[in-house]
Parts: sequence; C-alpha cells; structure tokens
Amino acid sequence: MADVKRIGVLTGGGDSPGINAAIRAIVRRAKPAGLDVVGSRDGWWGAVEDDLVPLGLGDVAGILHIGGTILGTSRTNPFQKNADTGAWTPTSKVDQILETLKRRQVEALIAIGGDDTLGVAHRLAPHGVRAVGIPQTIDNDIAGTDYAIGFHSALAVVTDALDRLHTTAHAHHRVLIVEVMGRDAGWIAILGGLAGGADVILAPEEPFSVGEVEEALQRRLDAGRRFSIIVVAEGARPVELGSRPVATEGRVDAFGHPQLGGVGYWLAAELEKAGLPLTPRVTVLSYLQRGGVATPTDRLLATRFGAAAVEFSQDGQYDVMVALHGPTVVAVPLAEALAGCPKPVGPEFLDLARNIGVR
Amino acid sequence: MADVKRIGVLTGGGDSPGINAAIRAIVRRAKPAGLDVVGSRDGWWGAVEDDLVPLGLGDVAGILHIGGTILGTSRTNPFQKNADTGAWTPTSKVDQILETLKRRQVEALIAIGGDDTLGVAHRLAPHGVRAVGIPQTIDNDIAGTDYAIGFHSALAVVTDALDRLHTTAHAHHRVLIVEVMGRDAGWIAILGGLAGGADVILAPEEPFSVGEVEEALQRRLDAGRRFSIIVVAEGARPVELGSRPVATEGRVDAFGHPQLGGVGYWLAAELEKAGLPLTPRVTVLSYLQRGGVATPTDRLLATRFGAAAVEFSQDGQYDVMVALHGPTVVAVPLAEALAGCPKPVGPEFLDLARNIGVR
Amino acid sequence: MADVKRIGVLTGGGDSPGINAAIRAIVRRAKPAGLDVVGSRDGWWGAVEDDLVPLGLGDVAGILHIGGTILGTSRTNPFQKNADTGAWTPTSKVDQILETLKRRQVEALIAIGGDDTLGVAHRLAPHGVRAVGIPQTIDNDIAGTDYAIGFHSALAVVTDALDRLHTTAHAHHRVLIVEVMGRDAGWIAILGGLAGGADVILAPEEPFSVGEVEEALQRRLDAGRRFSIIVVAEGARPVELGSRPVATEGRVDAFGHPQLGGVGYWLAAELEKAGLPLTPRVTVLSYLQRGGVATPTDRLLATRFGAAAVEFSQDGQYDVMVALHGPTVVAVPLAEALAGCPKPVGPEFLDLARNIGVR
Amino acid sequence: MADVKRIGVLTGGGDSPGINAAIRAIVRRAKPAGLDVVGSRDGWWGAVEDDLVPLGLGDVAGILHIGGTILGTSRTNPFQKNADTGAWTPTSKVDQILETLKRRQVEALIAIGGDDTLGVAHRLAPHGVRAVGIPQTIDNDIAGTDYAIGFHSALAVVTDALDRLHTTAHAHHRVLIVEVMGRDAGWIAILGGLAGGADVILAPEEPFSVGEVEEALQRRLDAGRRFSIIVVAEGARPVELGSRPVATEGRVDAFGHPQLGGVGYWLAAELEKAGLPLTPRVTVLSYLQRGGVATPTDRLLATRFGAAAVEFSQDGQYDVMVALHGPTVVAVPLAEALAGCPKPVGPEFLDLARNIGVR
Repeated sequence: MADVKRIGVLTGGGDSPGINAAIRAIVRRAKPAGLDVVGSRDGWWGAVEDDLVPLGLGDVAGILHIGGTILGTSRTNPFQKNADTGAWTPTSKVDQILETLKRRQVEALIAIGGDDTLGVAHRLAPHGVRAVGIPQTIDNDIAGTDYAIGFHSALAVVTDALDRLHTTAHAHHRVLIVEVMGRDAGWIAILGGLAGGADVILAPEEPFSVGEVEEALQRRLDAGRRFSIIVVAEGARPVELGSRPVATEGRVDAFGHPQLGGVGYWLAAELEKAGLPLTPRVTVLSYLQRGGVATPTDRLLATRFGAAAVEFSQDGQYDVMVALHGPTVVAVPLAEALAGCPKPVGPEFLDLARNIGVR
Repeated sequence: MADVKRIGVLTGGGDSPGINAAIRAIVRRAKPAGLDVVGSRDGWWGAVEDDLVPLGLGDVAGILHIGGTILGTSRTNPFQKNADTGAWTPTSKVDQILETLKRRQVEALIAIGGDDTLGVAHRLAPHGVRAVGIPQTIDNDIAGTDYAIGFHSALAVVTDALDRLHTTAHAHHRVLIVEVMGRDAGWIAILGGLAGGADVILAPEEPFSVGEVEEALQRRLDAGRRFSIIVVAEGARPVELGSRPVATEGRVDAFGHPQLGGVGYWLAAELEKAGLPLTPRVTVLSYLQRGGVATPTDRLLATRFGAAAVEFSQDGQYDVMVALHGPTVVAVPLAEALAGCPKPVGPEFLDLARNIGVR
Repeated sequence: MADVKRIGVLTGGGDSPGINAAIRAIVRRAKPAGLDVVGSRDGWWGAVEDDLVPLGLGDVAGILHIGGTILGTSRTNPFQKNADTGAWTPTSKVDQILETLKRRQVEALIAIGGDDTLGVAHRLAPHGVRAVGIPQTIDNDIAGTDYAIGFHSALAVVTDALDRLHTTAHAHHRVLIVEVMGRDAGWIAILGGLAGGADVILAPEEPFSVGEVEEALQRRLDAGRRFSIIVVAEGARPVELGSRPVATEGRVDAFGHPQLGGVGYWLAAELEKAGLPLTPRVTVLSYLQRGGVATPTDRLLATRFGAAAVEFSQDGQYDVMVALHGPTVVAVPLAEALAGCPKPVGPEFLDLARNIGVR
Repeated sequence: MADVKRIGVLTGGGDSPGINAAIRAIVRRAKPAGLDVVGSRDGWWGAVEDDLVPLGLGDVAGILHIGGTILGTSRTNPFQKNADTGAWTPTSKVDQILETLKRRQVEALIAIGGDDTLGVAHRLAPHGVRAVGIPQTIDNDIAGTDYAIGFHSALAVVTDALDRLHTTAHAHHRVLIVEVMGRDAGWIAILGGLAGGADVILAPEEPFSVGEVEEALQRRLDAGRRFSIIVVAEGARPVELGSRPVATEGRVDAFGHPQLGGVGYWLAAELEKAGLPLTPRVTVLSYLQRGGVATPTDRLLATRFGAAAVEFSQDGQYDVMVALHGPTVVAVPLAEALAGCPKPVGPEFLDLARNIGVR
C-alpha cells in the first residue's frame, strides 16, 4: 500500500476523444480518497519545465464529453533514440522531470497516451518514477489491452462517413475511396470498414494488389451494383510498390511540391488507368478521426481507466498499464504492453471480413 | 458436422438497432458457404403460420445501419406459461412450427431476441428443433454474454440526451430528470448515466429513498452547482413505496385515467414537495431508445454474432446462444444463459459510480 | 451616427442553442470597430445588481457551437405586471439598471431573448435606455422576424426524435406520441412534424378532438400501416376540454401529486379507451429541445443578428429588434414585434400539412 | 387551369439529401388531388428510353429523410452543346422524350436538379413540353431562389467537420485545411466556414494569395492561438496561378499519375514552404457533402417545393422554377433563373465574414 498524497497527470502524443473523460475520472476518484492531483501541461513538456497546474473537481466539471485534452499535448520526449541501434538514452530532461516531481511532491504519475508516451513512463521507472499508464490512441495498436481510449470515437467517424457515402454512391456509377488513419495497423480501416459496410478494405496487415481491387469492383459490377466503396488505411501496402506504404515513396508534383496526397489518391489514379466504368472519388478523413465528441464507449472506458489508475497508484502498482481484458480492467506490465506494439488486427476480424464477402 | 442446407432466421420481442446487421451477416456468411436462408415474418408468428420469405444477398443490401428489423417482430409465443407454477406448456403452435420447418426443409433456426424469444428456442429443443440464439435487447439483461445487440445503441441515445441537457441545465436552477428503460436491470440507466455524466442514477439494482436524492441535490447546491441531472430507470424502486417499482401502484388521475407517467414524474412531484430551490423537469425517452441507426459497436457485434451463428449451425452446435466473452465470440448453452436472466449490473460499474461521486 | 464606446449584452428567459454564437459575433464585430463590450450576468439581474463582466475576443473563442449561454440567464424583470389590467409598472430595479449603465458607461444595450426580455428592453426606452433586441426562443413565436435564434436547433431535435421512432415504430403495432414544446404557438410541432414525417400533428393553432385523431389512426390501419406517429404541442387544445390546454386542468394522482405529465399522456389514455389495436407509447422531449449544439442555420442567423445589432447601435437605431426578412437582416421597431406575439404558424404550413395528408 | 391527369417526375445531375422528400411531397400532394404520378429512371435517361415507373403513396413511404434519390440520376442530356458558340442543339433524344411523354400520357413534367437538368426542362418548352423545375444542388448556385434543395445538408456536413477539427486542433500546433465543394461559387465554403468558425475562408468569389493566408496565420500565432482552420472551396483561385483554380493546371506525380489532390494539398505544400511553425494537415470532404440524412431545413424546403410544383402544374404555370423568396414559395421563369447561374455569394455574407475578422 503506497502512501501517495499527490498524483500527477499528463497527456502525450496525438490526442483523441476520451482523454478528458479519463482526466475527470482521475480527479473525481482521487479527491474523495484524499489525494491531490496536478496536471502537467503539454505532455512531458510540463514535467520537464515545471509547468504544473492543480486539478480540482471544478476544473473537470463539464469536460466528460469534450474531445481534445484540457492539459494540452506535445511530442516532447526526455529520451533520445539511437537511429542505428534503436536504444533510448536519457537526456538532461530526465533530470529536470525528476526535479520537478521532487519539488512539487508528486509521488505518482499517470501518463495517458500512445506507445511513445507510455514508453517514456516505462523508461523512467529505473530512475525512480512511479508511473501508471493509460493507453490512448485512435489507432488501437497498443498491445496488452482489448481497446485504447479514442479508438471507438474514431470508428464512429469512419462509420458515419461510410453511411453518408452509401446514400449518395448508388445514385452514380462511382467508386468512392475513403482514406483513413492507420500507419502500422488496420484497426480503424478494418473495423470501420466492417461497421460501415465497405466493399473493399485495404489495411497494413496484408499487402494488396491493384489487380485484386479491380477484380472485386468488377464482381460487383457483374452483380449489378452501380457503385463500390473502398476503405484504405494510410499504411496500406500495394505489392506494386514492393509491399511498402505509398507515402514512403518520394513524390513531387508539377509545382515541385512533395505530393502530400497519400494512398487514396494513388489508388484512384491506378483504378482510372484500369478503365472500369466507375469514376473514382477520394475522401480523406484525416484529423476528423481525432476530433469531436467521445462516444459513450470511450467515455466509459476512459472513466474506468482513470479510476483504476488512481487505485493502482494507491495500491503501489507501478510501471503498469491499465488495460481492458474482456469486461474487466486489469494492470499489465508496461514492458509487456510496449513489446507488442504495434498490435495488428487479429484473425477474428480478418477472417470475418473475408467470410462475409469483403475483399 | 451437421449437414445443414437451409437456415431459418427470425427476430422476436422488442426490436433494437443492430438486428438488421445480424440478418445481413447471416445471409452473407451462409450464401458463399452454399446455405439457403429463409426468414420467418414477425418472430415465431411466421414459423407458426408458414409465412417464410427467402433471403438473398440482394435482400440484405443496404440494411446494415438501419434500426428495426426487416423481418418484423411480434410477441407470439408457442408455449403457455402457468401463472402459478411458472412452467411452460407447449400449445398447438409448437406442432405448427414443426410442420412448417419440415415442409420448408429448414434444418436449423437462428432466433434473434431477448429472453422470451430465446426461451422459446430452448424449449423447442426437446421437440427436435435445432436452434442457435442471438441475444438482442437494449436492456442488456441476458446472462452469459457481456453484451446483447442493441444495448450500445440505446446507450448512445441516453448519452446524447444527457449531453443536450447539460448545455441547457446550467443556465437555469433546475433538476432535470430523465426516465430511461430498464424494468429489471439498470444497464441503460447506470452505464448511460456514467457516460452522460449524471449526478444521480437510480436503478433497479438498489432501492433508493427520496431523502437520499434530496441530500445529493443539496450537496451540489452547497458546492455552488445550479443544476442537477438525474437518470432514473423505469424499474427503479423507492423505499417509500416498499421498494417496489412506481408503475406497479395503480394510479388514476382526475380524468379517471390510469396515470401512465412513471417514476420520473413521481420523483419530480416528490422533489417539488421537498422545497429545494430547483424546479424539476421530466424527459421521458421511451421508444427513442429503441430507434435510430445502430452504433458501430452494435453493428460489429451483430455482424460477428450473425456469422458465428451460421458457423455454429454448420458445426452442429445447437441449443446454444452466441455470446461475447471479452474479445471473443463463443457458444454458451441456452439453458445457462436463460437461467441467469435478468442479469443485473455488476459491482464494477456500481462501485465505479459511487467511487467517482455519483449517487 | 451614435457615438457609442461601450455596449452591454445580456441574455434573458429560456435559453436555446445559438445564443453564444450571437454573443461571439457581437464581440467580434464590436472590437475591431473600437467598441468595448461588457456582459450582464443572468439576464437583467446583472444589470440590476451591477454584475457586469468585460467580454474580449478571448472570452468568446470556442463558443460558437455550444448551447446555453456563457452569460447565464434568469427571469428577473424590473417591471411588474398588473394582474387585472396587464399594464407594466417600473419597480425600483429600473433605477438600479439606469445607475449601473451610467456608472459603467454602458451607452447601448443588446438584449437577447424572448418576448419577456425584449419587452423589458422596449419599456426601458422611455427611461433613456438605448437598446437593440435580438429575438431568441425555440418557440419561434416572436413577430416581425421570419425566425428567432434557437428555433432551428429545436426543430432538429424533434426531427431526429421522429426519425428514430420511425425505425422502431413499424416493427410493432403502436401509436407513438411525442410531446413537444409550444404553449402558445405550434412552430416546433408543425414544422417538426412535417420535417419528421408525423402522421398526426396537434398544435395550439387549431383545437382538435380525440375522435378526429382516432379516425386518422383508423385510416392508416385501413391502409395497412401498422403504426402511427403523433406530434402534440404542450399547448394543444382538445375540444373535449373546452378547447383549453390539458395542463390548465388541475389533476392529482393517487399519491396526491399534481399530475405533471401533460397532453401526451392525456391523449394516450384517451386513445387507450378508444380500443384501437394500437398500444400508445409516450415520449416527452422536454428540455432536450433547448439543449445541444446549435445547428448551422442557427449559428449563421445568430452571427448575422449579433453583427447587425452592433451596427444598428453604431447607427443610432434603438428600440428596435434585429429581424430576418427573407434573406435580409433588418431593424423592426420593438413595439411592432412585441404587439404580434405570440406569432402563430401561418397558412403556408397549415395548408401544406393538410394538403399532403397530415391530420 | 390546366387539365392535367398525369405528372412525370425526374431527378438529374449530382444528387443531394432532400430529393426524396421532394418526390414524396409531389406524390402526397398529387394523389389526393386525383393526379397520377410516374417517375423517370436516372434523370432524362428514363424519359428518353421510356423507362417510367408508377409512383404511389406506398412507394414514397419512409423516404422523407433518406439521402440520394429513389429514381436514380444521370448526366444524360438530350441537347448537345456547341463547344465554340455555347449554343444547344436538340439531338434525336428530344424526339424520344416527346414520344415517351405522348405514349405514356404524361402531361406535365417536374424536373428536380441543377442548372443542367433545369436547362433541359427549359429548352424542351418550345418543343411543347410543359415542365416545372425544382432547384436542387448542394452548391446553391442557382439564381432566382434563396436556397436550393441539398445546400443546408451539405452545410451541416461541413459545419460538423469543422466542429470536430476544433476539438483536436488546439491540442497541437497545426493548420488544418478543409477542402470543400464549390467550383464556381463559394456558398458551401463561406456559409460553412462562418457556421463552423473557420479562421480563413477561400472561395471562388475572390482570388486569394498565399501571402495573405500566411499573414492571417501569423496574426493568430501572434495572438497566442496555437492552431488555425482554413476552409477552401475546390474552385478557389490563387493569384499565384493567375487567379485560376488549381485543378485546371495539369499536374503529374512521380508515378506519371495526374495529381488528383486539389487546392487543399496545393495550399498545404505552399504553406509548408513558408516555414510557419504550424504543420498543415488536409481533409478532403468530397462526396461526404452529398450524402447522409437531409436536415430538417432541406426536408421542409423540399416538401414545400414538391407540393408547390404540383400546384403550379395544376394552375398551368410552366417553364417556371419553384423558388424560395424569403418565407414564400413562388414561381420564377426558368429563363430568368438559368441566366443568373452560377449565382455567387452576396456581400451580406462576404462583408459579414470580413467584419468579424475572418480572412
């Protein structure tokens, strides 16, 4: 039983809906238990620069549903990665963090974020920092937990987009391509595509060929369907490009611009070449997937994770990540969670898609 | 390995968003596997009356997101309940069902519904009917599975309503009471209340007293909050009425009408008597909770359940219910699932609510 | 050309989505023009009690879409109404307002609200207060303008509710009754009912009889429709009660409670007596209609109204209300606008409903 | 008073939410008046090929809110445009249409669409076709009416997207660019940008320079805002490209693809060159703007337009377009409406944007 009096909270990396719900739960769980809570501004940056703010019940009122993070976020990392070996070395910022925590009497730290943010929390353990991680990323690619905060909200954006496209798609002879997030894993693409009724789903888990896509579109044309909807993850890998993501290929347009449009536009151009009687149109959801109101699922998950993180801190469970295992919230070692990143989509969904006729 | 050629599908009881997604998945899973699918109209009614319709891929196109059920539903029950003993006796409708299935060569049956519908499926087993159940009810009170189809969509309606009320509540000195579904279990009230940030949640799981509610409201007034939001399940049980639901008390108004307004209006009237400086206003969500577009979570669940039900049929697993156990879809004996109905909300949510300061 | 340096803003009466958009537009229009803006807290209360807050560009950042009002609201009225004659007499609060405005050098006042709030603004004119009104009420019953702020957002709530009910309604044999706001005018009921495809619409504009409603339901049954949806305004007037609203009849239930449930429950009970094979279910939207995010239409209207109110102040146009006339924003005398309240729904919508077969 | 017995309906061009509401209103208005209604499939194609379907009350039940068009659409045009003179010459399809109408005894035609579809209706008048037009285009660029069907639904999509982006934008140092529809007019960009609180709006109405945009972003940085949101219409015209839209410049990427990404990506690349400490991210809404559920505003407009079109047919008013003038639905000559296309956004909105500090 740790004798914790003050807990620090920080939110790092890309934000997603549900973070504020977690912060709120932390404060609402901690305060009645006699714990103080302080927030670090802009992720690890506030811990480095001693920019901490007290968090009381009033500060977290009315934020349950709001996307983003009231604490701000950044990509500040107190460790440096060796480009060759991949090993991380502490920088002087680690000492600054230790000083801040000591000066402010912050005895435990709750870090909310993706693998970068959680990785810092884990690497600080040998330096004496007692941290609990909360997984948060719309990409859902953190291992050790069924779901991370933010994923279900991103899923809702993609599903809603596909619903919209369905209503207009069958008025025209079109193939509508929707580019979604997911550099390393296809959670958004595959589960979003299934929930939104996509005809073709292209994700990092399995390379695809343009020819296969053409065949799938042709099969639908043969079956009398006037349109098709393709969901493609930004990290999808065409065999035509050596099974590497499209974005890694340096492309420059006629203005000398690097071509920013990604795999969605690439695929559209390839399909146009193929000569099917379907005009491609590309929608790029981009940051829409990070924004908006958190879904109930994310709010419940975040509320449970936030409360559990406080309880683990009180119980002296550190260097762990709060995780959902089925219906239960448990603690898993951060080392274990991080070792499995990026977590790919498993066969229960890949097989499901194939078995119900989605390419 | 059962040698099934034709599967029947029916949807019974109160409908909820996600049923159509399950029907679609059944057809899309069965057809490529060489199975025929027929639908029974209006639940068990179609099986009794031999009102079956063929279901092809074209019939389930475009229905993934749509609430309700393309097959219709009813409360037809081929068994009769003995009011004293609670035992069920087959009526002549059971024979009619057996004849229909034989005549139409329906070798396996997938029944989508709540405990009534699934109960019929189970009681038909000794009569030689090979059935797989899919749990569907916004109330989420079917045992043996983490979630039933429809619950997450109802949750979204309640959460959205609470969000709306929050924006207007703090402009006024009001207590806003939201009456939600849940006669026997408080899944919608408790998880919806948590996701929507309710200040007070009243559910069948624990009787409440009006005095307690007043105290909770007073505490918020003392803390300077101008409003409070109460979520109350229709089956919530005030100790003032002997811990029985309000609706069981026969009430008649000045017109000789039975008073249809339930616990929400009852509580509002009691709070007005208490004299707090907060005017109560009642919202009754009623059938809104059954309607609308299925959420992505429900569509994924329904798609997984539908595909799995076909697979269980093919594998000869009968008298079972498709169930979600954590991230996995499994088969549980129908007897076991039904024995645990109505499944109450567990301590992981009841404690969570208390621990973060919700009454 | 008035030489105004400081403008006061206040929001009174029931709130609605779009108020914040108007406050934002006022500040964003005034500041670059060299004007100061102060807000009065809780409607006229802040002007009476000298509770004013400065409003800068930072204060109105991020509030465009948020329902409610950042300034709060109240029903404080510095005039007293003679119950017999209906005439208004100033109370001592009028002097307090005049002192506050003088002390704080507030040279012009923008009052955002319904007929109560705008009425005060108008009655203050003879006392030397230079005010511009902005019409705001979900009821849309202010004369002189096509639309008031908030109406379109309430319309969206009702329409969305009717969409939800449609998906579930036709699975059952039900008549779904939706009680909406509208004590004196049926804007929400009639336009909401039209937009949501209601089968029967009952509004204050025309008394209805229960018999007529039964006939309409029977006609739909005869045409093979399994359900009907009724929208009823809280101020709808059954001929059976002398064409007076249901709520005016004192009703007490078996607990000695005044029966708070209004016309929706009353109608449900009457229809049950009639014995149609349709079970009535009642949804009471209540404060949902005031809450939530403002629709684009309300945000645009509020932004235009806010900017125009500043411009009218600069031009020395007082004792007027900002109004929408077709595509144009104009100034109408407050006296004229108030004289026409409550503005009923016109024949262009009443006839439309009848002509397309809505009762 | 025309003695019309049978009305034909067709929907042409790009679809948008609200078309089905108009079709429904036409049938519901015509049937009780003793008129027959037939629909032409896929716009003018069905009239050419004699592919007409009867439309009864049952056919339009349940379609009020659904996007797309139950009749389908196409770009079939029975006239040919002279590329040099711009003059239109009838093709043999005109005769086919005349024969179809005669054979099927279709005495009046209601054409729902944009300037192309309405243009055909107008050019058929000298051939004896009695047509009434209903303006429908998300672009809202048809003259003679305040609004066309579909515009408000597209507006809602853009506004919702901007709301989402706002929640995530201020967690990061980003400039979020949203590319919206609008080749010739900026209705979606300007009204959507205003409703969604964009910081910079770029529309076809006024050429822009990249330098101006940079300055606007820098001003926000100077004011301490960490992010900016830019809405850019696909037809926006940078002075750097001779005030021509970006899409007209032939661009090829490193794969030999024509670069399909439009002005959004072009602007992002230009801003990256400028070296502001803001990373640009591009969202392309594309066909999302055409899809989804029609807003209440569009449903009411479409319902009014549909009913009025039937009434004009009955009254013998042909070669006219149904139009909204303020609160009133009127008939304007098709010639007049078409002459003013594309209708630009007027100063009431352009000035408003400037006056409240939007670039």
